[in-house]
Amino acid sequence: MIVSHARFMTDDQVRRTHDASLEILAQVGLLVRNSKARDRLARHGCAVDTDTGVVTFPAAVVEEFRAMVPATFTLRGRDPAFDLTVPRAVPAFTTASSAPDVLDPVSGQVRRATSADIARLGHLVNELDGFDVFSISVLADDAPAGQFSLSRFYPALKNCVKPCRTSVIDLAEARQVLALGELIAGSPAAYAARPFITFGHCPVVSPLTMDFDSTEMLMFFAENGIPNYGTIAPIGGLSAPLSLPGMMAQMNAEWLAMAALAQMSGPGTPMLYNFLPVFADMRDGAFAPGGIETAVMAGAVAAMGRFYGVPTGGYLGLTNATVSDAQAGFEKAMAPLLAALAGIDYVVMGGLTDALMCLDYAQLAIDDEIALMVKRAVAGLGFDEAALSLDEIRAVGPGGIFVDTAQTFARMKTATLLPRLANRLPREVWAATGATDIRFRALEQVRAVLTRPNPRALAPEVDARVRAAFDGLVAGDSVPPAGWTPPHAGRGRRQTRRRAGRRD
Amino acid sequence: MIVSHARFMTDDQVRRTHDASLEILAQVGLLVRNSKARDRLARHGCAVDTDTGVVTFPAAVVEEFRAMVPATFTLRGRDPAFDLTVPRAVPAFTTASSAPDVLDPVSGQVRRATSADIARLGHLVNELDGFDVFSISVLADDAPAGQFSLSRFYPALKNCVKPCRTSVIDLAEARQVLALGELIAGSPAAYAARPFITFGHCPVVSPLTMDFDSTEMLMFFAENGIPNYGTIAPIGGLSAPLSLPGMMAQMNAEWLAMAALAQMSGPGTPMLYNFLPVFADMRDGAFAPGGIETAVMAGAVAAMGRFYGVPTGGYLGLTNATVSDAQAGFEKAMAPLLAALAGIDYVVMGGLTDALMCLDYAQLAIDDEIALMVKRAVAGLGFDEAALSLDEIRAVGPGGIFVDTAQTFARMKTATLLPRLANRLPREVWAATGATDIRFRALEQVRAVLTRPNPRALAPEVDARVRAAFDGLVAGDSVPPAGWTPPHAGRGRRQTRRRAGRRD
Repeated sequence: MIVSHARFMTDDQVRRTHDASLEILAQVGLLVRNSKARDRLARHGCAVDTDTGVVTFPAAVVEEFRAMVPATFTLRGRDPAFDLTVPRAVPAFTTASSAPDVLDPVSGQVRRATSADIARLGHLVNELDGFDVFSISVLADDAPAGQFSLSRFYPALKNCVKPCRTSVIDLAEARQVLALGELIAGSPAAYAARPFITFGHCPVVSPLTMDFDSTEMLMFFAENGIPNYGTIAPIGGLSAPLSLPGMMAQMNAEWLAMAALAQMSGPGTPMLYNFLPVFADMRDGAFAPGGIETAVMAGAVAAMGRFYGVPTGGYLGLTNATVSDAQAGFEKAMAPLLAALAGIDYVVMGGLTDALMCLDYAQLAIDDEIALMVKRAVAGLGFDEAALSLDEIRAVGPGGIFVDTAQTFARMKTATLLPRLANRLPREVWAATGATDIRFRALEQVRAVLTRPNPRALAPEVDARVRAAFDGLVAGDSVPPAGWTPPHAGRGRRQTRRRAGRRD
Repeated sequence: MIVSHARFMTDDQVRRTHDASLEILAQVGLLVRNSKARDRLARHGCAVDTDTGVVTFPAAVVEEFRAMVPATFTLRGRDPAFDLTVPRAVPAFTTASSAPDVLDPVSGQVRRATSADIARLGHLVNELDGFDVFSISVLADDAPAGQFSLSRFYPALKNCVKPCRTSVIDLAEARQVLALGELIAGSPAAYAARPFITFGHCPVVSPLTMDFDSTEMLMFFAENGIPNYGTIAPIGGLSAPLSLPGMMAQMNAEWLAMAALAQMSGPGTPMLYNFLPVFADMRDGAFAPGGIETAVMAGAVAAMGRFYGVPTGGYLGLTNATVSDAQAGFEKAMAPLLAALAGIDYVVMGGLTDALMCLDYAQLAIDDEIALMVKRAVAGLGFDEAALSLDEIRAVGPGGIFVDTAQTFARMKTATLLPRLANRLPREVWAATGATDIRFRALEQVRAVLTRPNPRALAPEVDARVRAAFDGLVAGDSVPPAGWTPPHAGRGRRQTRRRAGRRD
């Protein structure tokens, strides 16, 4: 395992940033649009300006409540084998969420995403070992009226056994989704014992504003012990300073305000120290989540989160690329790797392109490979006396060869990551076997999964119970896209051999 | 600047690896094929087995000579403004060297590389701010008999003002290249005062073998104060253990042996602690320099090099991809970033694909952008009181906007890296303006440079002096490939605007 993380802030800088955030909270405050939240904050010692709705936070109040945030956060899966508690030695990876569009895997055209895409993606995420969590990647354009969030959580939970997570629009929707969870669990008590739905929300709109609905949900979740975490998403040059330390000071103040309200609502409610910090490209104001500064901010988030003793997270494997080209490759790889080496615990990175606007099934499989590489990097050398291999080096001697030693045989499937998708064929062989790029191979992997039935789909009797409870519910099944049949035999064999190699 | 590097080895593991290498050197030794080297090693306390040619190194001898390796290494450019001394705060980046093939930028077909490619690449590297050194990227298939290395160094030095570096085949070639340097400098004395050619070689063939010619050159360079450094390139599972700590122990022993011989030959001769550590893909034995293990090995190299107080280097931005796809992007980005965050001083990464077999002009420009991103990452937050932006946050207030503050105007060209090649246009605009991938845009950048004359080419009178000295010398000029004209006006303007933004 990596011995110590890269550090992007000194202890003094961390302390100064904390103090700067306290100054912001005490002197500038937050505009809080939810009156229940304002009352709660006032009751616990904050000052409310009744004319403006601005709430200022005395330092002592902030310190009191931020100290209540627990050191761990648990996300549960429908299958308990996938329950995830952060922090852990190797960071957790999740798909990125809530793109409106999908790059259709058959036509190659961009279209609105639907609940059928969510079902397929949930099915796919079961099979992608790099991902620990299915943060529901897209919206559902086919959602019936009154079932917007249900049309996302139902196909996700029906198909995916890993922790599923996304945001909901308002409290009524949250209650509907919780009812779904209770139906799947069998009873409200069974669900409460293992709440396997995690909510997210953006409870602070930068700069320094808490909106009505998301704040309402923040309080409701905290009051009721429901797993949820917020993401604060400032844009440097627009809704935050065009300066990395300045953005950090502001978004840290925003997080502390949110933490105070959450802990006032439910003392000990788990939280992530979690952000989506992006800088605008000031040549034209473009939202640039693929910029390297988002990665550097993760280094700062890791430092601050360590100071607070709270697990850290970030939206990090993001790209502005619209095609799965080298830009998509390097933008999606660099921020997660930097974050993991800096000690971020929870990396949101899979599948989205176009600055979070579009989900590409193939990119999701590519990002899974990146996630596995980052995890392998953090796992480090695997240093021990046997691994030093002195007897083997002695036995092989100068000019010898290691290919047939007992140690090589013993280690050949475990010493290195054996990628599913990366080409390692020499050019001539690669050209003779189809001359594919990685996106083509990724789409083959996706097709191989999605043209098989989902063995982890919800049991029919449980599903019948759910469907009886919600009129007009979307189908929610993972069915192959029209026009897709299983990959042809030649490629299928190669793919199978490679995967078998990795799985054994 | 980054506060502290990621660490992949504990102090105890570093010490144990050092001791393991000493054991290997004392008990197993190296096969040394060069008798002059064997004699020199024997004279300084090593034991030579005259039957086998194997030399063993007492620990005291290794310790004595490795302590003589200086803490810095300087590479000089034809223009002293580009002189580079490592280590420095931000790692140095160089192109990768010696591919036999090039992806022709006009036809898109792979062909043998020639001296004309080297001339163009040297011209191009002047313009790519991410690269500090031109490690001559390709071989020259058109080299006249007896001028193999001259046909590489001449077009490089004629066109590139940054430090130029590559290997030569034997001592006769090295002397020819040094004569070229003296002609360019004006005299042997002028050249000796500023030796702007850096040689490289692979003086150890793993496992534990020193060949004749490369060892001869190692001694010659060290005796004569000529800048040079070696690269040790073991392949785990073939020429080294299939184990990261085992490979480290062996290649460290190899480096210590080389260091001892170099310091015996010229006490205080500068060296890099420099490697190309690759693991074979044991499914089919493929050479896999794009594997994440090469990156993790850089973490170990950084730790060991720090222990020895020697600047560290590595071949790191390598890929097995044959096309500039997402695989090329993530493989070429991850190892340099990990290495930089671990504290590697000198990263060899630009331009090559196909596991070092082929140079792609477009990939070189893409890799330049990756290099700039890695440097920006290591530069860190830029933390100071002004950057904390408290007055600005106070003035903007809850719900305000930062787009028109004085601070935003002041920082808009410096706060973030403004990439030349990464697309940041929304999909609709991107589609309407050509729907290009990054490789297309990179090739446009290359074309824009190469269809202009090289303003940094060698002065005609100096060139005439050189050409008079070498019969049948290759032309060595950077001329546009047949069929290339300057980019058309529309794209040219956009490119110019972007570059202007970055340069101002």
